[in-house]
Amino acid sequence: MSAFEALVEVRLRPGIADPQGSTIERSLPALGFDNVSEVKVGKAIRLHIEADDEAGARGQVEALCQRFLTNPVIEDSVVTLTKAAS
Amino acid sequence: MSAFEALVEVRLRPGIADPQGSTIERSLPALGFDNVSEVKVGKAIRLHIEADDEAGARGQVEALCQRFLTNPVIEDSVVTLTKAAS
Repeated sequence: MSAFEALVEVRLRPGIADPQGSTIERSLPALGFDNVSEVKVGKAIRLHIEADDEAGARGQVEALCQRFLTNPVIEDSVVTLTKAAS
Repeated sequence: MSAFEALVEVRLRPGIADPQGSTIERSLPALGFDNVSEVKVGKAIRLHIEADDEAGARGQVEALCQRFLTNPVIEDSVVTLTKAAS
């Protein structure tokens, strides 16, 4: 068994309204940042997983995403795995 | 001017209670995942920024984090920049 650190970035699918991101973006010019656009706010979930190999770990994390970390109707997820120092 | 895509991962500092992460972690064994631990839920903020160079872009994104994307008392942030296709 090997240990992996997973980062799951959950973001709203294109076309889904992102009121948090829009609010940040609208307030930026008044705060002196007029060169920032397309602000999107999502979730970053970190977890530690033990599996036989990287493919197994990735499959399990993707199953977690599908089953309850994301709402696949409105959200996409991107999984990044790194081998944990053991 | 160059364009960059920034990903800001905002996470709770070590020692700060993370009730969302704890709740997910507690429910995992009942769902068949007994090899997952240390679940932490944070925010992932994506934005598009124009700046002269990567150091300038990074400086501005870090200023944004300090000023209003994070609460530095309880949160840490990690900035990842990639050059946008132009």
